[in-house]
Amino acid sequence: MRILSGIQPSGRLHIGNYFGMMEPSIRLQETGEAFYFIADYHALTSTHDPARLRDHVRNLAIDFLACGLDPEKAVFWRQSDVVEVTELAWILSCVTPMGFLERCVSYKDKIGQGISPSHGLFAYPVLQAADILLFDSNVVPVGKDQKQHLEVTRDIARKFNDRYGEGLLVIPEPRIREDTATVPGLDGRKMSKSYENTIDLFEETEKKLRKKIMKIVTDSTGVDEPKNPEGSYLIQLYRLFADAAAVAEMEASFRAGGLGYGHYKQQLFESIRDHFAPMRERRDALAADPGYVDDVLAEGAKKARAQARQVIDRVREAVGLG
Amino acid sequence: MRILSGIQPSGRLHIGNYFGMMEPSIRLQETGEAFYFIADYHALTSTHDPARLRDHVRNLAIDFLACGLDPEKAVFWRQSDVVEVTELAWILSCVTPMGFLERCVSYKDKIGQGISPSHGLFAYPVLQAADILLFDSNVVPVGKDQKQHLEVTRDIARKFNDRYGEGLLVIPEPRIREDTATVPGLDGRKMSKSYENTIDLFEETEKKLRKKIMKIVTDSTGVDEPKNPEGSYLIQLYRLFADAAAVAEMEASFRAGGLGYGHYKQQLFESIRDHFAPMRERRDALAADPGYVDDVLAEGAKKARAQARQVIDRVREAVGLG
Repeated sequence: MRILSGIQPSGRLHIGNYFGMMEPSIRLQETGEAFYFIADYHALTSTHDPARLRDHVRNLAIDFLACGLDPEKAVFWRQSDVVEVTELAWILSCVTPMGFLERCVSYKDKIGQGISPSHGLFAYPVLQAADILLFDSNVVPVGKDQKQHLEVTRDIARKFNDRYGEGLLVIPEPRIREDTATVPGLDGRKMSKSYENTIDLFEETEKKLRKKIMKIVTDSTGVDEPKNPEGSYLIQLYRLFADAAAVAEMEASFRAGGLGYGHYKQQLFESIRDHFAPMRERRDALAADPGYVDDVLAEGAKKARAQARQVIDRVREAVGLG
Repeated sequence: MRILSGIQPSGRLHIGNYFGMMEPSIRLQETGEAFYFIADYHALTSTHDPARLRDHVRNLAIDFLACGLDPEKAVFWRQSDVVEVTELAWILSCVTPMGFLERCVSYKDKIGQGISPSHGLFAYPVLQAADILLFDSNVVPVGKDQKQHLEVTRDIARKFNDRYGEGLLVIPEPRIREDTATVPGLDGRKMSKSYENTIDLFEETEKKLRKKIMKIVTDSTGVDEPKNPEGSYLIQLYRLFADAAAVAEMEASFRAGGLGYGHYKQQLFESIRDHFAPMRERRDALAADPGYVDDVLAEGAKKARAQARQVIDRVREAVGLG
């Protein structure tokens, strides 16, 4: 079973990204052939500063490796190191009815947000289809918001197979990530960069991390009064880092009263700090060794390309190129 | 000065193609660096039969070489042998406003003709821009119907340079082919496959060629009567193959009367046959030596890729890839 995931290099990761996407991806490397890439071609639709894009790509690679992505288990590469994906995107474009793309909600949404639409944004789902189909991927874990794009991929693959021959492209199955907890942000809404309510996976300093945690919105219950653990964002966050016993203890202490929220925030801060401490350590080591990260990505690209060549050769032969 | 031309492998060439496009292209190989490619990626938007596409590509290569394209003077390759063009197309997509493509008349026309629009058809001008910009082309000879697409190329190149740096992409100049005679078809309308009024560049047999010429529409003036050479399609065609003296002689004979149109058609037939005889001979030799044609295209692809790498490396560096 081949599992494919593309990760957008859109800046610093927060703990919502970690629990929503990174951690489940890293777990999956144990259960199948994991193919993970950093989607820098896609990022060109939104990142127009070359230095920033390079920086995002490198940081993302470092973060994933620091958090446990194992290049011996997962194929991990930079999308733009396997140019075949753009070739497949063109070939797929020729079997893709315009209607498939015009229907895509995420394109309509972006236009609705006032983003001036580029053709890249419109053609995004075709490149995404190429990403997936180029590796004969069986399973693609996606968030709910990406489900439609995966449907488009399946529709394009079927169109291609209808025209050129059954079985030429593997039709992938979506795997909607439902079991992952929604991570609340500092204000209780879903943690998201656009809400400016995030806690970075790797805040620059402990002090900054602590300062952020202290900003978590709580109610105005006094120090001595009993507090309601139900619906507390603080406890929701704590649950991600502490074991059941520790969570139960904090809940009991909430109900008993006598301690202010600052106390619990300090506990949360410490648990987050300790949880990510070994990853932060690896991250510092990786950041100090750029050659190693380059080698990992180069090696990943080599493996990815070898697989991609099989599919692109099959596709070129089928459509009459070369 | 680098001259770029892409040629669609859309089947057998007729003498309208020859005088409108081939012959001027072949002449241009003497005056600059000619870069000519067979546009098989583009052909995927209309040719869905792989065997037919391969056949068209091979025949086009043979026809061009037979008619005088000199691989020592012109770089001549199959588009799909230089995959970098699809990569550049993606990168350009990200700077191309949707409006640039929505405005394109040829897309609207095709929809108007009832062709079910694929994304490939819509994105056609972006791939065309990539074709041109990938080779730092200075001059692109185009028919009037392609002028808008070249404008789109220039607009995309300007957008790219605005965003990433002046001078990164060379802005090409159009050279509208105006001086070439419009070649009349058998019925007097412009020679075009869609009118079914064509004379193939290489009709299968002399007999077939003669039969076609005999179909040229003439008026009902009797054999002995004087005939009007003005507006005669027959003479217009003859002018393409005969020298001025021979044309003047035919015109005088028209006016004098005494000979039927069949006589003049025979003269035209002979002049066409003789004009293409040496090319037909080379064509037969090339068709019998597929290895040679493969070598020419492979060698051309090598040269084209070397040039393409310079531009794509510059572009990747500028946008922040790799």
